[in-house]
Amino acid sequence: MSGFFTIHPTNNVTAGNSGTNNGAARAGTLHLPHGMVETPVFMPVGTSATVKAMTRDDLTEIGFEIILSNTYHLYLRPGTEVIQAAGGLHEFMRWDRNILTDSGGFQVFSLAPFRKISAEGVKFRSHIDGSYHVLTPESVVDIQTILNSDIQMQLDVCTPWETPHKDAVQALKTTADWLSRAKKRWLWQKEQGYEGALFGIAQGNFYKDLREESAALTIAADTPGIAIGGLSVGEPADIFFEYLSFTAALLPPEKPRYVMGIGTPEYILAAIESGVDMFDCVLPTRTGRTGRVFTHRGELSLKKLDRRLDFAPLDADCDCKVCRTYSRAYLRHLFKAQEILCSMLASYHNLYFLHDLVKKSRAAIAEGRFLDFKSDFLKKYAEGE
Amino acid sequence: MSGFFTIHPTNNVTAGNSGTNNGAARAGTLHLPHGMVETPVFMPVGTSATVKAMTRDDLTEIGFEIILSNTYHLYLRPGTEVIQAAGGLHEFMRWDRNILTDSGGFQVFSLAPFRKISAEGVKFRSHIDGSYHVLTPESVVDIQTILNSDIQMQLDVCTPWETPHKDAVQALKTTADWLSRAKKRWLWQKEQGYEGALFGIAQGNFYKDLREESAALTIAADTPGIAIGGLSVGEPADIFFEYLSFTAALLPPEKPRYVMGIGTPEYILAAIESGVDMFDCVLPTRTGRTGRVFTHRGELSLKKLDRRLDFAPLDADCDCKVCRTYSRAYLRHLFKAQEILCSMLASYHNLYFLHDLVKKSRAAIAEGRFLDFKSDFLKKYAEGE
Repeated sequence: MSGFFTIHPTNNVTAGNSGTNNGAARAGTLHLPHGMVETPVFMPVGTSATVKAMTRDDLTEIGFEIILSNTYHLYLRPGTEVIQAAGGLHEFMRWDRNILTDSGGFQVFSLAPFRKISAEGVKFRSHIDGSYHVLTPESVVDIQTILNSDIQMQLDVCTPWETPHKDAVQALKTTADWLSRAKKRWLWQKEQGYEGALFGIAQGNFYKDLREESAALTIAADTPGIAIGGLSVGEPADIFFEYLSFTAALLPPEKPRYVMGIGTPEYILAAIESGVDMFDCVLPTRTGRTGRVFTHRGELSLKKLDRRLDFAPLDADCDCKVCRTYSRAYLRHLFKAQEILCSMLASYHNLYFLHDLVKKSRAAIAEGRFLDFKSDFLKKYAEGE
Repeated sequence: MSGFFTIHPTNNVTAGNSGTNNGAARAGTLHLPHGMVETPVFMPVGTSATVKAMTRDDLTEIGFEIILSNTYHLYLRPGTEVIQAAGGLHEFMRWDRNILTDSGGFQVFSLAPFRKISAEGVKFRSHIDGSYHVLTPESVVDIQTILNSDIQMQLDVCTPWETPHKDAVQALKTTADWLSRAKKRWLWQKEQGYEGALFGIAQGNFYKDLREESAALTIAADTPGIAIGGLSVGEPADIFFEYLSFTAALLPPEKPRYVMGIGTPEYILAAIESGVDMFDCVLPTRTGRTGRVFTHRGELSLKKLDRRLDFAPLDADCDCKVCRTYSRAYLRHLFKAQEILCSMLASYHNLYFLHDLVKKSRAAIAEGRFLDFKSDFLKKYAEGE
């Protein structure tokens, strides 16, 4: 995968002679089958072959170059054979830019009413109809190949916060074994013409020795990129930040690093500072549907009565079409009247907001002033109105 | 209101020497404060200051020149004072084309858990919070003036199918009295600068003598346009068609005629044939949200299993962006996964379909071949796939 990921040089304009003001942050470009992706990148989540309440035109207009979709959900509904018959996921949902798919492992653990891990793979019951299914490292590669994912993830074993050391050891050993099987299958699929990349996932729970061991095993498998798994699983924020930067620093600088489930401005900026290149989260669309929106001065709830006659835009510092067009009073009314348009507009704004935040982060990194950008942003964000 | 409504000449190209092949259909132009409206016209319903699951850009893209909104709903939520503070309904919802509002009378009868009619007006309880309210012919004009409706409707008394003759008499007499009071108030509002038009409503239930009497009283009030009320209230289709054409024929040709609550292709084409110029209905958006869509070969349900691997567009004869982009299989998947995008796309398609039907009807009328167009359309529509 030569040329898969290139890291941009940084012009140090603010930090004097002793280096840049970027922390471990870096900006780069991913070269994927459906076009280039500038990193750091926030990826909206399109769980069931659509980002909720958004059209593909909305996503293109904002500027997203890659979205995420969930293998677990698509495998169960509409079913792999439907997407295969459509000619792949891009064709099915008519999205001509990149798609990253997860392995389904996390959903098996978080959604399925029953699952049993063996050396072979994982057996589980569908949360939709209760039917039994088995996923193996090989079948998960095959499914994601049928989806024609631009980046696919290995099947892994994700452990929650407060997992005992010996269980975390077992999970990382199984994950490493599954990675070698996944890679073998992926190499075979590439020989058949598949062009997508495979990412291994480093686990290790909240034990630094296990993080080191799992990172080393994942690095040894030499996949085009590496994901940091087992974070955002119930741990306190300071533990999250500690293990995020600890694990990111273990990874080779030349490969893209991906952390799943990060969607608040604070977490995104911390991930970028730690040298993470890719992240995704349902948060901007999920909170949008509950009437909560990001602004440069913190989160705003449309439910509050004092918005009733507030004809200001959602966020005076946002250039999105929602902020340029509608008032808080109108959005609040739509929310109270349970109008679908509220979900549409709030999701659009929240995704635009995060896309803009990451875009400005990239510009700050290029100019060697990311840490200043981060602290300025977070100061205003914490101030409120 | 000189020049409020102009009727276009018809070029008779298909019907030989003996006149046009248009029935009573006619095409014209309404000249309204927010631009011209070509008639016949189908108006999408934006009950709570938005057409459900549609953006204003969607509506503009399809080509709608006027939408309808509901006074009853807006009066209760967000409340007249919110829309007044926004500078009117156009400004509140950011729609710069025309808006017709109904009087709220129909919703008081169909939605409110309690209502009592007196000579003065109607007292009712809100279906939202149970609070008591009174609407009078004058207050309804005032509310719609605050909304800044381009066309507003008088408060009327609507009676259901199988209303006794004496009750229908009382309802039409009250309606006529309320029209004279509404007109007086409307003339006063016009002196204050209001530019919208007032339409009277002809009632009379399903008694031809009462239809004649109510039409005469409404005509005598000399409003810029006239609505035919009291149809689509539970009667069989043949009775609807009979009373629609009977009542339309009683009205002066030079004024626009409006019938509320008509949204199927069959009813729309019958209304046009009877010389009706304007109609509205929630049907295209409501059925869209339940996975039912119009096609040139009849209605199609996305629920059906045989659409699972059907990669054809919703309607091969439709040029809308949904049909040019997505497959039935994808739309069916979105419906089964309860994705908001399904409501968005199905509503868009259904509204485009009716807009296109009415646009083609206007072209057929201009060329004197409307009855042929109608029978060709309905023949294919009844055939199915």
